[in-house]
Amino acid sequence: MELKQIYAPIQNDLDKVKDTIKSISRIEYKWLSGQLSYIVSETGKGIRPALTLLTGKLYHYDLNYLIPMAVSVELMHTATLVHDDTIDKALTRRSQATINSMWGDEIAILMGDFLFAKAGEFVADTQTPRVIKLFSYTLGIISSGEIGQFRGAYNIKQNREDYFRRIYRKTGSLFSLSTQSGAILGKAPEESVAITKEYADNLGIAFQIVDDILDFTSTEEALGKPVGSDLIQGTLTLPAILIIERNPQDNPVKRFFESRDNKDAVEAIDTAKNPEIIKECYKIAGEYCEKACRNLKSLPQNISRQALYDLAEFVISQGT
Amino acid sequence: MELKQIYAPIQNDLDKVKDTIKSISRIEYKWLSGQLSYIVSETGKGIRPALTLLTGKLYHYDLNYLIPMAVSVELMHTATLVHDDTIDKALTRRSQATINSMWGDEIAILMGDFLFAKAGEFVADTQTPRVIKLFSYTLGIISSGEIGQFRGAYNIKQNREDYFRRIYRKTGSLFSLSTQSGAILGKAPEESVAITKEYADNLGIAFQIVDDILDFTSTEEALGKPVGSDLIQGTLTLPAILIIERNPQDNPVKRFFESRDNKDAVEAIDTAKNPEIIKECYKIAGEYCEKACRNLKSLPQNISRQALYDLAEFVISQGT
Repeated sequence: MELKQIYAPIQNDLDKVKDTIKSISRIEYKWLSGQLSYIVSETGKGIRPALTLLTGKLYHYDLNYLIPMAVSVELMHTATLVHDDTIDKALTRRSQATINSMWGDEIAILMGDFLFAKAGEFVADTQTPRVIKLFSYTLGIISSGEIGQFRGAYNIKQNREDYFRRIYRKTGSLFSLSTQSGAILGKAPEESVAITKEYADNLGIAFQIVDDILDFTSTEEALGKPVGSDLIQGTLTLPAILIIERNPQDNPVKRFFESRDNKDAVEAIDTAKNPEIIKECYKIAGEYCEKACRNLKSLPQNISRQALYDLAEFVISQGT
Repeated sequence: MELKQIYAPIQNDLDKVKDTIKSISRIEYKWLSGQLSYIVSETGKGIRPALTLLTGKLYHYDLNYLIPMAVSVELMHTATLVHDDTIDKALTRRSQATINSMWGDEIAILMGDFLFAKAGEFVADTQTPRVIKLFSYTLGIISSGEIGQFRGAYNIKQNREDYFRRIYRKTGSLFSLSTQSGAILGKAPEESVAITKEYADNLGIAFQIVDDILDFTSTEEALGKPVGSDLIQGTLTLPAILIIERNPQDNPVKRFFESRDNKDAVEAIDTAKNPEIIKECYKIAGEYCEKACRNLKSLPQNISRQALYDLAEFVISQGT
């Protein structure tokens, strides 16, 4: 199933979210409009705002609150990418030159801050202190998690559990804000808020595992950045961790982390592409998707709930 | 009058604000505690949280809301300093090595983000969407203003009005958030909120003018950074603008901006220290302080109001 079909119940409103984001660059701060329109011109899958709208639509679908919330999660996501690219010295993202490579680190730092500010303004428009607090809490989880990742670069002593915790912070936490805010603003009962949290925590982890698989198995063209970027940056992802698990004493990942040599990087990337490794990674991602969905049946039976099931399926079908 | 005397009505509560900020490093994220306790160990004058508490105390002094708000403005201030230092490649601030110089730009970017997040959590604790929105709006003003400043570096074609607008964004806006939030949370009538805004907008500009004077007239020891840092970074401040006004065609600031030569920098800095220039700058700062105070008489006559007058006086007495 294509994302377009899954998003059908909320597509019109998701378009409004994207239009609202684009309008930021038109209405304010003429000296930012060049960068802003560049940043918002290339949009990703929109999975986070879609999650907010879909969970909101499970209950009381009030777009006065849900659109600003969906705008807010997408802007927070964009802001974190701008800062991450600056930290990683990344040249391209989604086949487009990064802000830091176009305008320098200084502008990228400030542009990220500006996007956080805009995200904060939109979340304030929800008039709901609980989701506002969750929004800031989530940003704290993400940024402190990135510090942990940066500090752990080229550290071979990280196991699966470390990895799952790390990608929860990186991706699961913002998925979780996206669904919980939708549910809270939709006036869902507390048990349902908790179910949408469980769904998003686990879906986010599954999504990140698949993203990390694709970093090895996809092409530079499709990725919009070099294959194996994570490993080259010293970030251990699941395929690399499985390589280490299989032969802890001597393996190409360890050799690369020790030598930082290009030849060793190529070998490590090749080994990560091993079909057994990749199959195992997909299996683990699939388990997180199952965990994500296990309590969805308690939510109201409607097209939004079905979309949540379909989205989980979509996530693990990527690249297969 | 010393700050200690001015702060007397709220000193105990300001200490609570500082303790709360220090406690962040103790309670969470052990991998951040080193950096966090370093950042919060050296505190500045605390003028922003003091403004929140003093304006709050004019009316209904509810510390359940005012303490988180005061913590929030101070954390936002700290976060912007961490990012500014990274952008300016500053080595020291308040005689202490900067985060970027200690741990690198990557950690500084993320640590700034983390502090924004914490600031956001505290402002959410005010449970008041209006001040939360103002908080985010202010961050947008500050970060977009910094982009303008960065872009305008070494641009000789900036006049007083450009400068006043720029320092409003840099400093006035956060002073303004500090007092307005205090007044709003103190349930002040709307006219009083507007008066505290007028006070802070202008006090912030006066404060920044004096700060910019001291950047030339003070010593490296007292500043905790080299004398003339702003000019060397290509930032035009009031003393330099007055030099340009007096002789637009040929002046040492213009020569330095063209040559970027150290000899020319020394001459420009020397010229900025000219007593007439400095006197004129203080006069302008004084006018902003008068403007700040002109409607304070309409506020309730109590020790907090007196402290606002005294603070304005303190601001322009610095360095004289």
